[in-house]
Amino acid sequence: MRIDAVEFFYLAMPEITLEADGSQDALLVRVTADNGVQGWGECEASPLTSIAAFITPRSHGVCQPVAASVLGERIDGPADIARIAAGVSRRSMDLLQAAHTFSGIEMALWDLLGQARSVPVWSLLGYERVHAKTPYASMLFGDTPQQTLERTRDAVARGFRAVKLGWAGFGEVSVESDRDQLQAAREGIGAETVLLIDAGQIWGEDVGQAAARIPALEEAGVVWLEEPFHAEAYSAYSSLGARSGSVGVAGGEGAHNVHMARNLIDHGGVRFVQIDTGRIGGIGPAKAVADYAAARGVTFVNHTFTSHLALSASLQPFAGLAEHRICEYPAGPSELATRITANHLLPDRNGQIHIPDAPGLGMTVELDAVAPYLRAVDIEIDGVSVYSSPEVPIVSVAK
Amino acid sequence: MRIDAVEFFYLAMPEITLEADGSQDALLVRVTADNGVQGWGECEASPLTSIAAFITPRSHGVCQPVAASVLGERIDGPADIARIAAGVSRRSMDLLQAAHTFSGIEMALWDLLGQARSVPVWSLLGYERVHAKTPYASMLFGDTPQQTLERTRDAVARGFRAVKLGWAGFGEVSVESDRDQLQAAREGIGAETVLLIDAGQIWGEDVGQAAARIPALEEAGVVWLEEPFHAEAYSAYSSLGARSGSVGVAGGEGAHNVHMARNLIDHGGVRFVQIDTGRIGGIGPAKAVADYAAARGVTFVNHTFTSHLALSASLQPFAGLAEHRICEYPAGPSELATRITANHLLPDRNGQIHIPDAPGLGMTVELDAVAPYLRAVDIEIDGVSVYSSPEVPIVSVAK
Repeated sequence: MRIDAVEFFYLAMPEITLEADGSQDALLVRVTADNGVQGWGECEASPLTSIAAFITPRSHGVCQPVAASVLGERIDGPADIARIAAGVSRRSMDLLQAAHTFSGIEMALWDLLGQARSVPVWSLLGYERVHAKTPYASMLFGDTPQQTLERTRDAVARGFRAVKLGWAGFGEVSVESDRDQLQAAREGIGAETVLLIDAGQIWGEDVGQAAARIPALEEAGVVWLEEPFHAEAYSAYSSLGARSGSVGVAGGEGAHNVHMARNLIDHGGVRFVQIDTGRIGGIGPAKAVADYAAARGVTFVNHTFTSHLALSASLQPFAGLAEHRICEYPAGPSELATRITANHLLPDRNGQIHIPDAPGLGMTVELDAVAPYLRAVDIEIDGVSVYSSPEVPIVSVAK
Repeated sequence: MRIDAVEFFYLAMPEITLEADGSQDALLVRVTADNGVQGWGECEASPLTSIAAFITPRSHGVCQPVAASVLGERIDGPADIARIAAGVSRRSMDLLQAAHTFSGIEMALWDLLGQARSVPVWSLLGYERVHAKTPYASMLFGDTPQQTLERTRDAVARGFRAVKLGWAGFGEVSVESDRDQLQAAREGIGAETVLLIDAGQIWGEDVGQAAARIPALEEAGVVWLEEPFHAEAYSAYSSLGARSGSVGVAGGEGAHNVHMARNLIDHGGVRFVQIDTGRIGGIGPAKAVADYAAARGVTFVNHTFTSHLALSASLQPFAGLAEHRICEYPAGPSELATRITANHLLPDRNGQIHIPDAPGLGMTVELDAVAPYLRAVDIEIDGVSVYSSPEVPIVSVAK
């Protein structure tokens, strides 16, 4: 097969709030091969910027648009995906956004290959079987401890056996107010549920601020403290890790290539490495990180806060790793994110989710269901169109 | 003062080749304060993508456009620049391209502050005096050793006391062909001139390929081998550094924040850290790296392949460091890059260049001189304009 077309579909909620809720917009990618087989992927965040990186005029030989390394390329097997990725890495070396743009395309290439061969992506990755994952409900702290208590109680009532909380001012005010939030969360979920905390880089590289929260985190039985620092502040990560007691330090979502994730393991000493398949360059690099982590006793976890298309893509890299059980699961996604796929990865009665045993990523994208959220982008340079969003035929909703 | 406007000027040569020549296009940034004072900066590469990152609709609270953290902000001193930078780092955390976009803006803020106070940027950075730098002519290898010999001989004839060569297939064919190129370069420059080599990440993370070239590099008296590997392949860097003999390993141009540059020093063991002020977030972060490097016996070097506006900005961070003497100097920039500024930092009779002792960056940008190279960008979302390039009044060239 040869790559004939790469189309972007930019979707957004009518109003985008300032909450750290990554499901408020989406950039879907559809790749079509010359025999008509298609695959779907999703880029993480800032759709307009990622579209620009695909079609931007080149600046020089190693600052070419992502399109230059993708369109027209052969795609007959996993080795082709790696070859195309290496081409992007080389020809778009100086184009920072390229990694985010290509991530969605790379997912779509795996999906396409899986569709063409009628096998799941995890099988193409070399896994012979998959293991159920324990999803954690990924949520924002409430504005008050009471709200946090209600939110977490609700998550447990919905069957979640693990809960992650973050943002909404955590880490910004005082150790005491953070302890109140942590205690409320533990109260809400009860003794048995896994509790995880996301600091969202709030302490920059201030190890003292993070360390001051360790007693309260231990008291609440928190399993991991995520992203206490800037993504690449490895020294701060390793300093905190040396004094974080029973609380594991987690991070990695900021990695936009394999090296960065490996470095966080090697030099940051994290116990959990969290990879966003929509940022690191797609499924191939994420699988490489999973292998690297597994060999070093570090737990691989996906980072996903958008649709179930992105969720399926983010589970494939560690689908076959039985010991790496916990997975991020957007517990309160926007209506838009929910509607992107016709099928969803829902927790079973034991609170487990199952990676699809179906061709490709196993997800059915419904463009007509999200048509109301589509945003049309037009870019002109010197009055000449260089990009125009694909037309989506309006299908009657009452079908 | 308050930031009233940020304007982008996208310039490009009529034809952009696939050479690794970064001077073929440019994205100038003009920042205007509410009292009319202006400053100029320059973003490194992919103008359209960097413009998009400034104006893109937000995705969520920590994926906001760069504009959200800049427009309307107070700018009364260096602390304000750091505060604005921290705001971008926070609010555009998930927008990868933000660092490149903000780099040009940050430079312009320093220039603006220098203009307002009638002092050079290096003085605002805390340096009491500046030291001349020894520019190296940054060039691409010739297609043949003979062409390389002629090019390097010409550079010495033009007064350069140091020459850097790279790209054009170096590292891709064989150790023997690379040795021929290196010998030709040494022959062209004679025994006294400093010779530097840029591998442009050609070996990925293959330490063996790089190490195989060390004897030929030593034989040719090469001072540094730059970017043998991917920007963040620290393990490969440190492995090579342990066996590179008299050849110092250099790198750092890919760093898009301070942490990445520090990590390359701490974990990659480079002897030279090369910072592109147009990528790392501007002059402030570059100065922080210079301080960090100086304290650890690592030599700070600028990475610059564009205009003399970018060159001045890239020299400010280590202007006051007498021991950090060598500096990158685009030896064969495009006509466009040359025309951006009315004044230029030309080597004196001793082959030294002098950092301007003038307000701000000390460079005069001539928009009308580059008017023929201006490219007009228009971006619409759902038929509504979200970006339109600023109008530039056409000034008669015969003035």
